[in-house]
Amino acid sequence: MTGRFITFEGGEGAGKSTQIERLRRRLEAASREVLSTREPGGSPQAEKIRSFLLEGRAKHLGPFAEALLFTAARIDHIDRTIVPALERGVHVLCDRFADSTKAYQGAFGQVDAALIQSLERTALRDLRPDVTFILDLPAEVGLSRVRQRLADRREGADRFEQEDIAFHRTLRDAFLAIAKAAPERCVVIDADRDPDEVEEAIWATLRERLPELTSGEARPSEAACDHVA
Amino acid sequence: MTGRFITFEGGEGAGKSTQIERLRRRLEAASREVLSTREPGGSPQAEKIRSFLLEGRAKHLGPFAEALLFTAARIDHIDRTIVPALERGVHVLCDRFADSTKAYQGAFGQVDAALIQSLERTALRDLRPDVTFILDLPAEVGLSRVRQRLADRREGADRFEQEDIAFHRTLRDAFLAIAKAAPERCVVIDADRDPDEVEEAIWATLRERLPELTSGEARPSEAACDHVA
Repeated sequence: MTGRFITFEGGEGAGKSTQIERLRRRLEAASREVLSTREPGGSPQAEKIRSFLLEGRAKHLGPFAEALLFTAARIDHIDRTIVPALERGVHVLCDRFADSTKAYQGAFGQVDAALIQSLERTALRDLRPDVTFILDLPAEVGLSRVRQRLADRREGADRFEQEDIAFHRTLRDAFLAIAKAAPERCVVIDADRDPDEVEEAIWATLRERLPELTSGEARPSEAACDHVA
Repeated sequence: MTGRFITFEGGEGAGKSTQIERLRRRLEAASREVLSTREPGGSPQAEKIRSFLLEGRAKHLGPFAEALLFTAARIDHIDRTIVPALERGVHVLCDRFADSTKAYQGAFGQVDAALIQSLERTALRDLRPDVTFILDLPAEVGLSRVRQRLADRREGADRFEQEDIAFHRTLRDAFLAIAKAAPERCVVIDADRDPDEVEEAIWATLRERLPELTSGEARPSEAACDHVA
């Protein structure tokens, strides 16, 4: 597989989708072919499971059943979207991946870590992200960003109330523990700053870790001119 | 839990739903309160996962993802339907349960047995069927019954072709192996005979294994009279 697989993890409000969009543009400006995708979802069947999960219908199933559904969706996403892209030499940027299952369903202590590990191993087989960016925020900042977002969208109070400060602390600790356990793969990025700075930190990491990806940072206009000439 | 939990397993065409219906009537005639249910499905969320699975949309996800979806549905079925009924003293007759996952997704050698076991343990927690009837048929008979059923329903050839004799043999062997590994729970019933005889064999087993369930075989009319008097 010639494409690189880069995942973005972190709590809500950490800026994952913003940074994925910025990185996508930057890589495309360097004439790289990029696919940005997300979990849950990212392939036709996985999107169906996504709506089931996100409509809140799966919530009362409990964290173990949720982990099973996320994993089933992930298998389709890997088989139908991620691996075919990587095999074509396309670089894949993914908004959440297996670490989110570990953090959300695992870290709250409700699902056995060995079982989560075993599900992950079976679902991923040989696939591992080349780099995982953990966008890290203090719990207070994460919470206030989520509250702002909910206020902007005029969403109901149910979810708002559930996501208290303890939730954000547990989630942050879970992601930091994941990063600590896999330093060869994970990079913690301080996301409590200007998006430009976060973007630069991500780019600097890629230059170091995947130099073949960032080199030859040609602007698309130049590439187009070359082509015409 | 005062209700008894009885599951029926076996290949398609073995007569599970017929025998469940007969047992339900017979137990009700003995003034027992009975709930008959089925997998996948048996509760609102599980039925949603059922349609996803049976529409064939999950087929290409592969046996592991299928096992995850069946297990997620099972958790809802257990929590919302089976356990509440058993706790109310209602006896539950279930058309397929965890052994089907073991047989269909496990026995074809594609999903790791230890992982299937681990999923089952986590999903079922303390719940175990009091008795599991394995309705057993020679592979040739199972195949011809399925073919007849497909012809009656005018279903397409896709599934028909997939269910060849080797499939039925593997499935039968899988169920027999499950029965052999758990003789305290499983009873193999020869289903290659008249439905009346199968019904009697099932009833005889229950008299022996769960005498409290079959005793006082009063007709409902008598019970009603007692109540009025």
